[in-house]
This record gives sequence, C-alpha cells and structure tokens, in this order.
Amino acid sequence: MAAIDFWYEFASTYSYPAAMRIERRAREAGVALRWRPFLLGPIFQTLGWNDSPFNIYAAKGRYMWRDLARICANEGLPLSLPPQSFPQNGLKAARLALAGEAEGWAPAFTCAVFAANYAEAKDIADDATLRSILDGLGVDADAATTAANTPANKAALKAQTEEAVTRGIFGAPSFTVGDELFWGNDRLDAALAWAKSA
Amino acid sequence: MAAIDFWYEFASTYSYPAAMRIERRAREAGVALRWRPFLLGPIFQTLGWNDSPFNIYAAKGRYMWRDLARICANEGLPLSLPPQSFPQNGLKAARLALAGEAEGWAPAFTCAVFAANYAEAKDIADDATLRSILDGLGVDADAATTAANTPANKAALKAQTEEAVTRGIFGAPSFTVGDELFWGNDRLDAALAWAKSA
Repeated sequence: MAAIDFWYEFASTYSYPAAMRIERRAREAGVALRWRPFLLGPIFQTLGWNDSPFNIYAAKGRYMWRDLARICANEGLPLSLPPQSFPQNGLKAARLALAGEAEGWAPAFTCAVFAANYAEAKDIADDATLRSILDGLGVDADAATTAANTPANKAALKAQTEEAVTRGIFGAPSFTVGDELFWGNDRLDAALAWAKSA
Repeated sequence: MAAIDFWYEFASTYSYPAAMRIERRAREAGVALRWRPFLLGPIFQTLGWNDSPFNIYAAKGRYMWRDLARICANEGLPLSLPPQSFPQNGLKAARLALAGEAEGWAPAFTCAVFAANYAEAKDIADDATLRSILDGLGVDADAATTAANTPANKAALKAQTEEAVTRGIFGAPSFTVGDELFWGNDRLDAALAWAKSA
C-alpha cells in the first residue's frame, strides 16, 4: 500500500491545518499514514536562527499570520490570534506524541495539542494543558508522562529529528514518500498523489 | 472587473511557472492582470541576505530545485538544470519589461526571459540574449534598450520595488488583490479566487 510520513512540529503554524485534515485526506487517497513528530529548534539553530524565521523576518511573519487565517477560514478551522505565545515550546508534547504512537492515541493527541495552541490560545508547554488533553482522550496521563520521559523515548525523539535532517527536512510540515520530500501544508495533495502513483 | 497584480523577479525560480500560466489562468477566471516586475535583491539585502536564500540555506536550495522540477513536469514546462547561473542578474530584463508595458509586449517578453533562464540555460544579463528575445517578438531592440535605460524608467523600477516593500512583499512571485497579499507560485489560484469574490 502507498504510504506517506507526516513530519510535524508542535510550534509550527502551518502544521496545524495539515494535522487537522491529513487523516481524512490520506484515507480518501488510500494512502497509509505515519505521524512523525520532530523538533525544528535544533534544525533552525544549525541555520543560525535562535527564533522562528517568522519572528526574525517581520514581513514574512505578518504575511504568515494573514495567510494562516485565510487557510483556516477556507478549511473551516477555528483560529484564535494571537496565540498564547509564538513559537511555543513543543518538546513535552512531541515526547508524548511519540510515546503514544504504540498505543494509537498519537494522532488524536496531536490534533488536540494543535487546537489548544492555535484555536484555544493555551500554553502547550504547561503540564496542566497536556494532562487535560490526555484526560479528554481517556489516556492515563501519569502513565503517558512516565513513558514520555524515559531515556529511550527521549532518545527516540532525538533520533527522529536526526532522521528528519538526513531526509533533507528544514521546515514543517513536511511529507515524505520514500525518499521524495514535500515541504509545506500546501504540498499535502501533491505528496498524496506522489504516494498513489509510486 | 476583478483585478490581480503579478509581482515577479527574473532571478526567481518559482516566478517561472507562475509567469507561464498566469495569463491563461487569469483569463479563465475573468480577472484583469497587471504584470509588475521588481527587484528582490534590495529587499533581500534589508533581510541581511547578500545571496538567494536557496544558496545560503543548502537544504532549502536542494529541495527547491527538486520541487521546481516536479512542478514543471506537472505543468508540462521545459526545465534545464542547472541554469546558466543562480541567481542571475535580472536588472536589465526588469527595466526592459517595465519599458515594454506601454507597448504591450511586456508579458511575452517576460515569459521568453524566464524560458531563456530556466528552459534554455541562457545568460539573461547578456545583451545578446535580451536582443535575441526582443527580435523574436518583433520589437525594435535598439529603441527598447534606449527606453529601458532612461532615467525615468530606471526610477520607475525603483519605485515599483519600493511599492512592493510597502505592500509587504518579501519574495517572488507574489500576487496582490487590493491590499491582500499572496506569496508563492502555489498561491496563484487562491489569489484569483480572492479577486473574483472581492
């Protein structure tokens, strides 16, 4: 079966609309989907950026927020601006998402964290926010937090980020189909079409 | 009538597929189209870039060439890689395109220059390349070059670039519909839809 990997970072604005529709779009396309949380911070640091390029380059940032608002309006997605802060620290959420992969709750958790960040202006680095999301999904928050913070899970997130770099990923969201890389929310359909024809 | 402005820079890779289909797409959408050549170099310099970000950030550059190849394949557009050099100096071509606006040959000239750059691996800063393009369009190359190099036309290109900055433009291609800005070849359809609904 054709397959696609969805590489996302919880701080990434354009990862929000991608996360909210990718499950449905992949199912419609008959393409298997793997959710791959990773961290953009270490990658941006290698590019000389200690902040989001949307903060570093003001015109680009102003445009992004307007573009995101148009995209969310088109998709019928709620958007609450400004967010609680930008970029938020998605480290805890990424570790949780990775820990939830084996138990199958990573996709729903991921969508809920993105909604908390961009639709509800919540602090996604706050344990209370994450615990409330896990509770809402019927996940044992204590067990999930313990699993997220094992040395093995921390190492797995680091390895996932290193794999992203090896695959040429430099931003989020990205999609990979085998060795073929697609960058940006607006490339989801192209990536799914590639997966189907591969 | 709904209207769209197409802001392009001759060195810009993604401006090539945008230029090659915008006339047809705007006609199909019933949207009036204005071609607005400008210079990205001065804008990039204000961002601290003395080169294309696709050269400064290697992973981004590798991705862009691959992405451009996929886009051109989808659009049936010829692409010859590597180009003669990247980024090429589009100053002369931009002055000519602006000078050709009043006489109506700017769109055809623009498409021919993009094809020379990206489909024919030619040097678009070379007077012989530009003269050959003008000849092919039945334009008096001597008169066009004289018109391009008048102080008034040089000032007009500078003013056009300053207007781009005022409009929040930071990359190419960009599209504006009134005060609404759309950035990137992949936003052409969204910009046309906005123009139609405005």
